Amino acid sequence: MSKINVVIWNEFRHERNEEGCRAVYPEGIHGCIRNFLKVNEDLEITLAALDDPCQGLPDELLEKTDVLIWWGHMAHGEVSDELVEKIRQRVYAGKTGLIVLHSGHHSKVFKQVVGTTGNLSWGRDQKEVVWNLMPSHPIAAGIPEHFTLDLEELYCEPFYIPQPDALVFGSWYEDGFIFRSGVCFLRGLGKVFYFQPGHEFDRSFYNPYVQRIIKNAVYWVKPADVGYTVPEGAPNVTFKVTDEFN
Amino acid sequence: MSKINVVIWNEFRHERNEEGCRAVYPEGIHGCIRNFLKVNEDLEITLAALDDPCQGLPDELLEKTDVLIWWGHMAHGEVSDELVEKIRQRVYAGKTGLIVLHSGHHSKVFKQVVGTTGNLSWGRDQKEVVWNLMPSHPIAAGIPEHFTLDLEELYCEPFYIPQPDALVFGSWYEDGFIFRSGVCFLRGLGKVFYFQPGHEFDRSFYNPYVQRIIKNAVYWVKPADVGYTVPEGAPNVTFKVTDEFN
Amino acid sequence: MSKINVVIWNEFRHERNEEGCRAVYPEGIHGCIRNFLKVNEDLEITLAALDDPCQGLPDELLEKTDVLIWWGHMAHGEVSDELVEKIRQRVYAGKTGLIVLHSGHHSKVFKQVVGTTGNLSWGRDQKEVVWNLMPSHPIAAGIPEHFTLDLEELYCEPFYIPQPDALVFGSWYEDGFIFRSGVCFLRGLGKVFYFQPGHEFDRSFYNPYVQRIIKNAVYWVKPADVGYTVPEGAPNVTFKVTDEFN
Amino acid sequence: MSKINVVIWNEFRHERNEEGCRAVYPEGIHGCIRNFLKVNEDLEITLAALDDPCQGLPDELLEKTDVLIWWGHMAHGEVSDELVEKIRQRVYAGKTGLIVLHSGHHSKVFKQVVGTTGNLSWGRDQKEVVWNLMPSHPIAAGIPEHFTLDLEELYCEPFYIPQPDALVFGSWYEDGFIFRSGVCFLRGLGKVFYFQPGHEFDRSFYNPYVQRIIKNAVYWVKPADVGYTVPEGAPNVTFKVTDEFN
Repeated sequence: MSKINVVIWNEFRHERNEEGCRAVYPEGIHGCIRNFLKVNEDLEITLAALDDPCQGLPDELLEKTDVLIWWGHMAHGEVSDELVEKIRQRVYAGKTGLIVLHSGHHSKVFKQVVGTTGNLSWGRDQKEVVWNLMPSHPIAAGIPEHFTLDLEELYCEPFYIPQPDALVFGSWYEDGFIFRSGVCFLRGLGKVFYFQPGHEFDRSFYNPYVQRIIKNAVYWVKPADVGYTVPEGAPNVTFKVTDEFN
Repeated sequence: MSKINVVIWNEFRHERNEEGCRAVYPEGIHGCIRNFLKVNEDLEITLAALDDPCQGLPDELLEKTDVLIWWGHMAHGEVSDELVEKIRQRVYAGKTGLIVLHSGHHSKVFKQVVGTTGNLSWGRDQKEVVWNLMPSHPIAAGIPEHFTLDLEELYCEPFYIPQPDALVFGSWYEDGFIFRSGVCFLRGLGKVFYFQPGHEFDRSFYNPYVQRIIKNAVYWVKPADVGYTVPEGAPNVTFKVTDEFN
Repeated sequence: MSKINVVIWNEFRHERNEEGCRAVYPEGIHGCIRNFLKVNEDLEITLAALDDPCQGLPDELLEKTDVLIWWGHMAHGEVSDELVEKIRQRVYAGKTGLIVLHSGHHSKVFKQVVGTTGNLSWGRDQKEVVWNLMPSHPIAAGIPEHFTLDLEELYCEPFYIPQPDALVFGSWYEDGFIFRSGVCFLRGLGKVFYFQPGHEFDRSFYNPYVQRIIKNAVYWVKPADVGYTVPEGAPNVTFKVTDEFN
Repeated sequence: MSKINVVIWNEFRHERNEEGCRAVYPEGIHGCIRNFLKVNEDLEITLAALDDPCQGLPDELLEKTDVLIWWGHMAHGEVSDELVEKIRQRVYAGKTGLIVLHSGHHSKVFKQVVGTTGNLSWGRDQKEVVWNLMPSHPIAAGIPEHFTLDLEELYCEPFYIPQPDALVFGSWYEDGFIFRSGVCFLRGLGKVFYFQPGHEFDRSFYNPYVQRIIKNAVYWVKPADVGYTVPEGAPNVTFKVTDEFN
């Protein structure tokens, strides 16, 4: 069985520039995610960063990417529109599944693929309780009714996203706010999962349930077994199905 | 213009048997709801209670009910299956829109119409913050980003409902819980809105936003202008649409 | 790995009483479905019929049924309400996934589990073209853009179902009608798939794509890996999540 | 009561360059739509065309556009990205509702706002039967179970759109194809309706049901009564809701 090619794309600026962040994620956020994903032997993992050549996603790599995990924050504007458009087309074509983490809600990739401003409000780090709203969803496999993150950045509703195709997790925050923190979108032949935890100074990516959710999501967003060759553009149909009747 | 016939059905046992409840709702919960709805002159309002003849909904009344508001709790089991089935058929036929309040999540009507156990967990009265998750929905018209209820019964996720057709409100509770507190379901030609606030000892039905939401919901669930006579059962079609071509 | 217990429930009256039907399905519709499912070695298959003891579903069997496939038509009314309620509870509890075929749209099971009248119109047997509307859905795996059934009973829109959680297939009929022919519903922790083809005098269950779709559906509706013990009813929560913070 | 500002934007090239099209729509497709909308006195209608100054949508006009109706085909690529982005932001902000007609499925506006390639296949003009799949939806008000268009361009599934928030109409075509021909999308605070009929050489815009549907859609997509001032971007929340409790 061929492996699933997972690319973990990280902006990778905070970790290099801010000691507090580096202390939490010495190998980078992408390195931390790699460490818990690599236990699964059917995953072939590649790390990519904004400051790598071709912004980390040269065509050769993108063209074999089954699952793209995206973490970005301070440099959303630097990601090239051309790259975003390539990713968008691959997701719509069902060739790449997309997992967007935390501050990626404002990344060009999330906004363009899903069709949203990605707007929300945010506040100080605090306790977050993640609630399992759809325990039968594949992304919630093995997750309890709730789990607690000691310190995570506050993200607040209203979150100006389209109605998700599945609302899997919702979060409670100490200061009186809630957030739709785990949401699925179907776009074209592709799948997208957005997950809220993952602030660069907090330790959420070490939480075993966060890890399980991201792992589950990899298998959920991966390309489907589409039963025919999907045409490009808007081809002209020159046959009649009714002719098959004779 | 003809008026919208609204029937406010209340179990009306707590208010008669428990002084604490009667102190809050001296005219009954249905009376309180009537008081804020009746300001709208296009609404023709009738009160109904479980201990009224025909459990409050004789056929003559049910057959002209455009909107049915339902509050029940301790006596769900006493409501006759026959009545529930009549209501279900009217909702599916698009003749009656349904608004279910608070502990009505476990009413036969809600469970049968929507297709759910209505299960959830609950706890002590506490602060609740209601968040506006879909500010563009007609039921959220005029509602701010959030509002606070000083004391309301705790309802907890997971709430074992089907994915709602629209998730309009979500709630935060002091003790660490959240709840999908305002949800819409389309069933057949009918519409259903469930709203969480409304514990019999608390004052939520006096909150102006709760009142506005219920008012908005009346107009949202009311029967649609269906453009043809809907057949009953599964009739045999004896024509070919293709014959219309000649 | 433990096997998936699949029960194929068939009313099994037409095949015994009508020669034309028996000629098409000499082993019964359930026997035909068994024959193409049994190739998959991870499926443990049991046949059940209305006239078997306990209407084919004694508690011992039902309690180990992971996936229930349902075909009924002329005797919907004979199925006991008690059995229907048991099935409904198992689906909502996520213990049994449900696949409803063809005239099962009017079965008590479908109507009660999903929350619908199941109403539609129907007409003479004719050519049907099944279109793949969601090629990335697991139930559409391996299915082409469309396939043709030479002769199938006409089912017509409007089909008075709730909005499905996924609309996977749609059908075209010779006489000018269309139908949402493959639809998914999430109910409680359970999954339901309804599929239109399967008239008792036609040969749809011999079509390789119909077979593939039903096979795919078995894996899609099967119970999820829920990560905690789901409570029954509406239990009282006596803890505060916020206490976990200290 | 203030009027609803409706802008009917038409590419308006076919009508000027092709006699066959001009013969059908001598005032342009936008002119034809204006003629049936203007009966409603609460609509303030403006016509706009690609070759008008500012591509028909100068800022002063766009900023007061409540509802934008869009017909384009051969010149999608000429519409400026800047204008598309302005429209997108207005839709997401809930300031402009969007109705996209026929070949607009491939317009930049539709693709960017909804998040889709808009891909589909198409074929020769033929009979189309439009079926009413959601008779209770406001856009289906007054529409029968089905109506027939004598000649309309064939559009074929699979249509590579996201799952719509409501599937209101589906179409049957003579040659064996079907299409989800009337679909609603919620995006941000805005609403989008796509409707398939409207080929430049056919007479669909003279059909009274097509006219009624577009008219209904104007009222459905128009801006909602949002109850607060929606912030821009991702503002920092500096208050605690829990402070309101004291």
